[in-house]
Amino acid sequence: MTSRTLDSITGAKRVVIKCENFQRTGSFKFRGAWNSISHLASLERKKGIIAHSSGNFAQAVALVAQILQTKATIVMPNNATPSKIQATQGYGAEVVLCGNNPGDREKMAEELVQKYSYKLVHPFDDYHVIFGAGTTAYELVRAVNRIDLLLVPVGGGGLISGCSIAAKGINPRIKVIGVEPKNADDAFRSFQLGKRVPVENPNTIADGLRTSVGEKTFPIIKEFVDDIITVTEEQIIDAMKFYWERMKLVVEPSGAVPLAGILSGNIESPLIKNKRIGIIISGGNIDLSDFFSTLKKNIQFRKDHLDHITI
Amino acid sequence: MTSRTLDSITGAKRVVIKCENFQRTGSFKFRGAWNSISHLASLERKKGIIAHSSGNFAQAVALVAQILQTKATIVMPNNATPSKIQATQGYGAEVVLCGNNPGDREKMAEELVQKYSYKLVHPFDDYHVIFGAGTTAYELVRAVNRIDLLLVPVGGGGLISGCSIAAKGINPRIKVIGVEPKNADDAFRSFQLGKRVPVENPNTIADGLRTSVGEKTFPIIKEFVDDIITVTEEQIIDAMKFYWERMKLVVEPSGAVPLAGILSGNIESPLIKNKRIGIIISGGNIDLSDFFSTLKKNIQFRKDHLDHITI
Repeated sequence: MTSRTLDSITGAKRVVIKCENFQRTGSFKFRGAWNSISHLASLERKKGIIAHSSGNFAQAVALVAQILQTKATIVMPNNATPSKIQATQGYGAEVVLCGNNPGDREKMAEELVQKYSYKLVHPFDDYHVIFGAGTTAYELVRAVNRIDLLLVPVGGGGLISGCSIAAKGINPRIKVIGVEPKNADDAFRSFQLGKRVPVENPNTIADGLRTSVGEKTFPIIKEFVDDIITVTEEQIIDAMKFYWERMKLVVEPSGAVPLAGILSGNIESPLIKNKRIGIIISGGNIDLSDFFSTLKKNIQFRKDHLDHITI
Repeated sequence: MTSRTLDSITGAKRVVIKCENFQRTGSFKFRGAWNSISHLASLERKKGIIAHSSGNFAQAVALVAQILQTKATIVMPNNATPSKIQATQGYGAEVVLCGNNPGDREKMAEELVQKYSYKLVHPFDDYHVIFGAGTTAYELVRAVNRIDLLLVPVGGGGLISGCSIAAKGINPRIKVIGVEPKNADDAFRSFQLGKRVPVENPNTIADGLRTSVGEKTFPIIKEFVDDIITVTEEQIIDAMKFYWERMKLVVEPSGAVPLAGILSGNIESPLIKNKRIGIIISGGNIDLSDFFSTLKKNIQFRKDHLDHITI
């Protein structure tokens, strides 16, 4: 998708947006889950699969398991958004709730693996997941004439490691820049130091990017990614607002992070001006129940003030 | 755009959505404004054009005038959403504010026409505007293999009259059903009575559909539209929620009305089951300033409760 306004604001020749919010289950996670689970030996699949996730990966694994007629168990923290739990169950997966302290999910998943011999599917630190996620950039770069710069969000690093392999594989001159919330900047710091440091107290609205970069993803990032920059919470919300109001796209906070990167001014101008830029929206899953129930209440109680439907 | 979930909920063979929220200026209004203004004699255009609108037509006329390098004056009610006034001015139009009582806009526009010899462009009761709007359905029907039923919102009737001509022109067996808010059901009542009755106190969130059906549009509707049904305010909001949450599309209330029609159960089942259905989203312009400033405030004041970003 493109936007004349965005081209004009940024000074780019053309900004092309890859909309993984339109992907099945509403995020790119479907790609990696599909690639990973469909590669399992049939015996492994028969025993059932297990994953832990508070959000998008849960739904992706649940749908893949449904399509492949495999039993799926998803460990989710007990503070996960109810709509995400329901969506995961809606695809036929069994949801097991755990605590929401660091390590709780992994521990619970490990217990269930021991007990039932389920096959654990990791949300990003798995080469099949990485290569699956990389098809996002492959499709984007193949679909447009040329890309000079590709912007990708960074959480665990599955999306950007796969995308950097795909983009550089097609054309090594494509620059790949990762964008990360300043409040969860472990990948930025790891990239600067050349070695992996864990995220500390990741207090960001971009809930999909709170994890630390992975053991398998980080070496790929070091090799193929040109730079990692960070953005503030305010910049993430401004980017979301641009997508929603100007482009009519519902994008979740994590998905808006790369646009925040280009709008922030933190990327040097020669990389942008008159260049062809690819931006990946990683997903669009966001619970709007409160927004719409407030809208309904406003209709009930303020029947004569309907001109402005903001809440 | 299509949605597996929508096909499954409705029982249709395939529902195809035409996304005029992605149109320039965010609504289908650009089509009619372009067709009307570009058909003016150059002498008429030189004197400048004038239009009255509280919303989408204002922006459409302003952009067309900018592209055609014509002076545009837009009369807007003084309670119009500030963002819509700004967007109209942003395209280089002069905005003249008037009162917000019925008739105020027309009176002010008429005064300015008298004074400056501007050419008035009507938002819907103009054959060029009608035919321009009809290209929406033309593109939709041409782009998909077959359409059995087409659902279109009804306000002044410009979109549905143009779309019914286009759809029936391509294939007279396509059924065209108009969907209107129950709280602004003048087209529904006019269609039943066979003669035009004006809208009374149109208290609907679908601000684009508060106008009465037009003198030129109504005879076309009588001839080419198969039925008009109505939907409640709650049904409109539920349809918006489906678009936003499930399809990741920002759709304004008026734009969600046809989907509300099919979800309401007010269309008889044989017209839907296993049929190919076209639905037009008329636009996606909605002011989300309050939503996003609340989100920013939440970040400031509730830094430790960011898991759920609903407000």
